Amino acid sequence: MNPDALTAVLDGQWAQLRREIRAQFADYDHDEPHDLSTEEYRAWVLERLRELAKSGWHRLGFSTEYGGGGDIGGSVVSFEMLGYGDLSLMVKSGVQWGLFGGAIQLLGTAHHHERYLARIMDLDLLGCFAMTETGHGSDVQHLRTTATYDPATREFVIDTPDEQARKDYIGNAARHGRMAVVFAQLVTGGESRGVHAFVVPIRDEAGAPLAGVEIGDDGRKAGLNGVDNGRLTFHSVRVPRDALLNRYGDVTEDGTYTSPIDSDNRRFFTMLGTLIRGRVSVAGGAIHATERALAIATRYAEQRRQFARPDGSGEVVLLDYRAHQRKLLPAIARTYALHFAHEELTRALHDLQSSAEAGERAQRELESRAAGIKAVATWHATRTIQIAREACGGAGYLAENLLPALKADTDVFTTFEGDNTVLLQLVAKGLLTSYRDHFADLSPLATARLVAEQFVGAVIERTAARKVIERLVDAAPGRDDDGVLFDRGWQLKLFEDREQHVLEGCARRLRRAAEADPFEVFNDAQDHVLRAARVHVDRVVLEAFVAAIDRCADEEARALLNRLCDLYVLSNVEEDRAWFLEHGRLTSPRSKAVVAAVNDLCAELRPHARLLVDGFAVPEPFLRPAMLR
Amino acid sequence: MNPDALTAVLDGQWAQLRREIRAQFADYDHDEPHDLSTEEYRAWVLERLRELAKSGWHRLGFSTEYGGGGDIGGSVVSFEMLGYGDLSLMVKSGVQWGLFGGAIQLLGTAHHHERYLARIMDLDLLGCFAMTETGHGSDVQHLRTTATYDPATREFVIDTPDEQARKDYIGNAARHGRMAVVFAQLVTGGESRGVHAFVVPIRDEAGAPLAGVEIGDDGRKAGLNGVDNGRLTFHSVRVPRDALLNRYGDVTEDGTYTSPIDSDNRRFFTMLGTLIRGRVSVAGGAIHATERALAIATRYAEQRRQFARPDGSGEVVLLDYRAHQRKLLPAIARTYALHFAHEELTRALHDLQSSAEAGERAQRELESRAAGIKAVATWHATRTIQIAREACGGAGYLAENLLPALKADTDVFTTFEGDNTVLLQLVAKGLLTSYRDHFADLSPLATARLVAEQFVGAVIERTAARKVIERLVDAAPGRDDDGVLFDRGWQLKLFEDREQHVLEGCARRLRRAAEADPFEVFNDAQDHVLRAARVHVDRVVLEAFVAAIDRCADEEARALLNRLCDLYVLSNVEEDRAWFLEHGRLTSPRSKAVVAAVNDLCAELRPHARLLVDGFAVPEPFLRPAMLR
Repeated sequence: MNPDALTAVLDGQWAQLRREIRAQFADYDHDEPHDLSTEEYRAWVLERLRELAKSGWHRLGFSTEYGGGGDIGGSVVSFEMLGYGDLSLMVKSGVQWGLFGGAIQLLGTAHHHERYLARIMDLDLLGCFAMTETGHGSDVQHLRTTATYDPATREFVIDTPDEQARKDYIGNAARHGRMAVVFAQLVTGGESRGVHAFVVPIRDEAGAPLAGVEIGDDGRKAGLNGVDNGRLTFHSVRVPRDALLNRYGDVTEDGTYTSPIDSDNRRFFTMLGTLIRGRVSVAGGAIHATERALAIATRYAEQRRQFARPDGSGEVVLLDYRAHQRKLLPAIARTYALHFAHEELTRALHDLQSSAEAGERAQRELESRAAGIKAVATWHATRTIQIAREACGGAGYLAENLLPALKADTDVFTTFEGDNTVLLQLVAKGLLTSYRDHFADLSPLATARLVAEQFVGAVIERTAARKVIERLVDAAPGRDDDGVLFDRGWQLKLFEDREQHVLEGCARRLRRAAEADPFEVFNDAQDHVLRAARVHVDRVVLEAFVAAIDRCADEEARALLNRLCDLYVLSNVEEDRAWFLEHGRLTSPRSKAVVAAVNDLCAELRPHARLLVDGFAVPEPFLRPAMLR
Repeated sequence: MNPDALTAVLDGQWAQLRREIRAQFADYDHDEPHDLSTEEYRAWVLERLRELAKSGWHRLGFSTEYGGGGDIGGSVVSFEMLGYGDLSLMVKSGVQWGLFGGAIQLLGTAHHHERYLARIMDLDLLGCFAMTETGHGSDVQHLRTTATYDPATREFVIDTPDEQARKDYIGNAARHGRMAVVFAQLVTGGESRGVHAFVVPIRDEAGAPLAGVEIGDDGRKAGLNGVDNGRLTFHSVRVPRDALLNRYGDVTEDGTYTSPIDSDNRRFFTMLGTLIRGRVSVAGGAIHATERALAIATRYAEQRRQFARPDGSGEVVLLDYRAHQRKLLPAIARTYALHFAHEELTRALHDLQSSAEAGERAQRELESRAAGIKAVATWHATRTIQIAREACGGAGYLAENLLPALKADTDVFTTFEGDNTVLLQLVAKGLLTSYRDHFADLSPLATARLVAEQFVGAVIERTAARKVIERLVDAAPGRDDDGVLFDRGWQLKLFEDREQHVLEGCARRLRRAAEADPFEVFNDAQDHVLRAARVHVDRVVLEAFVAAIDRCADEEARALLNRLCDLYVLSNVEEDRAWFLEHGRLTSPRSKAVVAAVNDLCAELRPHARLLVDGFAVPEPFLRPAMLR
């Protein structure tokens, strides 16, 4: 069988673009930078970024008016495919075009666009996205940098009150950025109007910090050392009134605050919501990096041998060992599942952001889905790349075999663009309030109070290919049938039922918040809340897998994907079978049958392992570790 | 409460030595090398190694005859305490004195000792332990380098037949080593006598490779970049007859092979067995590095705040969140448990290697215990340090905050000194054959055949403080009592019963090997085999924890350790509760009660978190990440 049939299903809506990008990657011939000093590596990445700018793909996300491509989904796809290669380059491009350029496009208005967008696309203007502070990351609402309007000079004065409020971990800040989009509390007429974004020059043409701007260097990091992360401290830095990115809030010359959105809270979360593309993109990058790691580890596992067979027929290939199959095959299944779910998310993002008027609920739902898939995909990347490294033994520890950089570079994905734990809380909150809460408030504590008022009962809303899923669920056999484990309808019902049950239990616990200390109630249920989010994401991901199989026209590929989907489901059930047992969803014999089924599926899929990772279609220049040469 | 009482229990038998080493560390003032080039870092570590040589502790493992300290346990302790600091230094010292020096001491005879030991201790002679080859790591018996005796010149000729047989990942090889202990198949009179070790000079005084010795560099690695790992290829390199480390096998001038041990197999595993100290040491280093990571993450979690309390009383300290407690506290409990088990292992090693005549069964049992604790402790380190990094968010990703190096450096511990998966198979084999198999054969395939002949039934042999454990088990309440979860006797019985059941089931499956293809039978049961080893180690570790509490004279410390032990047990049961449910060992309500108990214990221990990590007594110079300054 040819892997192309699998690739076609994975490629989804932007297949044509993906093929074009792959064709260009086929000629990629830069050595991977394994042993550069931090400064050399930063310079190397900047050079690659300039090459990348010639490709034009980075323009896809910007509006056509200013020379962009106006293709939001395409911009995510072209970004995430950088996840096959050097991840510092991917992240640096995300900082420049996604975060910095994206903030100016989405939070700014016409004069900002005219002034900056073309220069940003051309790399004529390098910039930073200065949101996070040393003391406040996930809790953006409580950032402490201030931008105080001075009507006398018609300027904003940007200030860092203390070290905990300095901007930290800011990409492009330590070396290359000339400008920063700075998030700060807007103060005018003595009143704070919440966090807004400002365009603040930080370096002159020669690269020296501007007056009042103190620039620090985050120095060496666990990974991504080609990105120059740094710290920004502002000492009464004055910027003109129009430095405010004023799409959602403005200040008139006399200092009067105006906004199309009345509520400070709602405005804040609307602004944050526009930045969702970053989360979708990081999830995609994580999935692509995971695919590369699995392709490398699987090729090695098919080549390396260990211990002689007792019958004298040579040494055993690593992947013939069950323990080795168990390391790689369920991870491959889950990567397919997440890839499908992510492709679907990209389509939803594209549709929503391309339409003139998206409903607020649809926006909240999408933010929640992006948060959930980002959390699950990046944890999956961390775990899987670790497994891939260990599966290659000592060879997997050498930089020349690529896995060390993959591991170190992706590690922070679980933390940036929203800490995963906090993101899962956001997901749970959306589910528990049926997205009727207007604000995608990241604060876990808001959840407890809201649920008390709003929760009406868990209603599972299917996300993908509703018809095929309904048909499968309706046709599911009774729970006592044999072979039920492999029935897709039964599997779907099992996931739906788990989600509903966990969610309802969670709501029951949080309702007590009306009577007791909300923090204690929330905290007492925190593990339950996180679990509700996870099982929800598991179900959404399964539905995406089912929908993808439904789209697959190739008979053989479809059959293989069906088995892979079984492995995704049953390895998930296996990991969580304590819950299914505790709640009477699985009997002991059936629970043991699940474990046996995972073993059998690993053995059944083992001959197809290479085909499955070839389906990821990672460009060959990125699959040349020394151990496979 | 003062942490010293906890430290006293952790310190165990070599408390005095530990105090001396800590006192010396108190003045340690080298900056951690975060951003050195590979060559600079290698040079830095060599310099630190020379300083370390002045301390004298590295002499502890060598015999007093040649200027050593003759204190085997002390040598392990002084090595593992280097795990608090730069891990490249720890590993480099292990390569030089533990592996290279240890091989010469344990496999060589008087003339090797006289010639080399003093020079090795003084760092006058730097050397390598050249065992692993590119194509053979865990399967040492099938190494392919050859040492062919030439009676005409009375020399051995060392040869690397092809690239897969080159020595790889060899510490000290890329830069500093002048000599290597090379493991090769000894061939004399046309007959192969199995793997033996040879002393082979590889560089001249000026550092240039000697004729016929090709030296490669493994280059940059995921971590441990202060250790110069390299590759050695031998092209007909001639060494004199006495280059053979001839304690267990010798060749006379005319080429006649002689050995005090008749069986090639038995001789080989006896030789390997002497090298057990490396595994014990790596486990200890991993545990100490884990303690440092937990101390850092816990201090940060007590300082960093996130999200405002709803009642306006300020922001919530990270460690007040249940999800955060769940990340750190069970890991702290498990680290205590492993520390106690490891201290006990060190005593056992010391006693066995210090006594003139140790029984063969005792030796096999100790090898098995070392293998099991090495596997569990190093996986625990990888997982826990990852958790610690994530628990510190973006700050945890910066090199200046120490966790990146801890993560990257310890990562390979799961792979070197025996791949963990292979080691667990060795443990299972020992259990299944009651150590009656003479050879600690790492080959998993040998297991299946042996069990068919030898297994008589699982008999749980208690390792530690038998009396106190017996007393507790005898006093255990019936399984239907309330509060049984916190009864130590019940917990001990639960672990014993699990081990016995898993082991017996495993043996039943492997017995089929007599009838069927042994590889298929083994492979089909591989996950079961690995599980048998893990639950065995869990039980051994619990017994060590119980014995440690029994030794603790301080009332308060004892009470705290008792709660911590409960957390160790119940978080272990929680993770594995699917098995307990499937096998009728826990009812659904009790299983849910286990989860609730873990939550309660986390909340109960949270106020003592700082005290608990202070108990590890990590010297303060190693606890100064920038984020805590």
